[in-house]
Amino acid sequence: MRVMGVDPGLTRCGVGVVEGAPGRPLRLVHVSVVRTSPDDDVAHRLLGVEQGLEAVLAEFAPDAVAVERVFAQHNVSTVMGTAQAAGVAMLAAARRGLPVALHTPSEAKAAVTGNGRADKAQVTSMVTRLLRLDAPPRPADAADALALAICHVWRGAAQSRLDAARRAAVPRSRGGTVQ
Amino acid sequence: MRVMGVDPGLTRCGVGVVEGAPGRPLRLVHVSVVRTSPDDDVAHRLLGVEQGLEAVLAEFAPDAVAVERVFAQHNVSTVMGTAQAAGVAMLAAARRGLPVALHTPSEAKAAVTGNGRADKAQVTSMVTRLLRLDAPPRPADAADALALAICHVWRGAAQSRLDAARRAAVPRSRGGTVQ
Repeated sequence: MRVMGVDPGLTRCGVGVVEGAPGRPLRLVHVSVVRTSPDDDVAHRLLGVEQGLEAVLAEFAPDAVAVERVFAQHNVSTVMGTAQAAGVAMLAAARRGLPVALHTPSEAKAAVTGNGRADKAQVTSMVTRLLRLDAPPRPADAADALALAICHVWRGAAQSRLDAARRAAVPRSRGGTVQ
Repeated sequence: MRVMGVDPGLTRCGVGVVEGAPGRPLRLVHVSVVRTSPDDDVAHRLLGVEQGLEAVLAEFAPDAVAVERVFAQHNVSTVMGTAQAAGVAMLAAARRGLPVALHTPSEAKAAVTGNGRADKAQVTSMVTRLLRLDAPPRPADAADALALAICHVWRGAAQSRLDAARRAAVPRSRGGTVQ
């Protein structure tokens, strides 16, 4: 299973692609940070994020996308842009028919370190070890994106089966309608 | 000048297209509401909003897009979805090279009624009169989208000149870079 993890943001959007399966060694496929300038307007920054994510999706063709869940109560000054960058990631995945999962920062931290309140250094250290990297991924957004992808590799298999069962049980309409 | 106004939302996203110029009569080009199901996951709802907005952009080819500015402090339970729907509208416009403006609800209300704290009935009534419609646009999201478009027709001409001057004075990088 190949998973793209996205740590959403307008100034720095971490993107990590990891291959693996529960109980098997993990492999780093790609890691990068999409950056847009705070001097640009939000519309063009979202376009920059989309172009950066599309390039990774096109080149590395993940099977699923895991995006960090954004909470309204944190960092009010930047939360709208972060939520919108997360939305762009979800949209890009949905457009390609890829399953999208949201994981909280605590879930990602707990998955890689065993502690949902681990600090950035611990997360970076464990990501480096789990992926057997020669050097820790920098900046922290890149390590966070990889932690999300690893979290999804390990949680995703079980969750995907649950989601599939739920979808089969409750047929739902897809997409929007213009009235 | 033809402006598409967007009152963002996941359950109901109001879309109105208006043609006009400051001091000239306004003309209704299009009004609709893009709806997505609360039973769908956010990724597919955003895709539904994108498809609905893309259909209007393709058919009515506006010169500019005005989106309601979303504030983090309001309606916390739905604000993330609203912000993401607004992000999709900005992204769709930027992808087509269209200028995007954000107007607050107060600015839109003040533009059409003269009162930034007007209620929904007043806004709907004035939109109906300004566009010389036989019946008021329903639901309220449709009227709000038209009010935003009208607001932009009237404010946009001046703002566009300011923005162009600012862009000419400060060359900026566009788009994101993958590192």
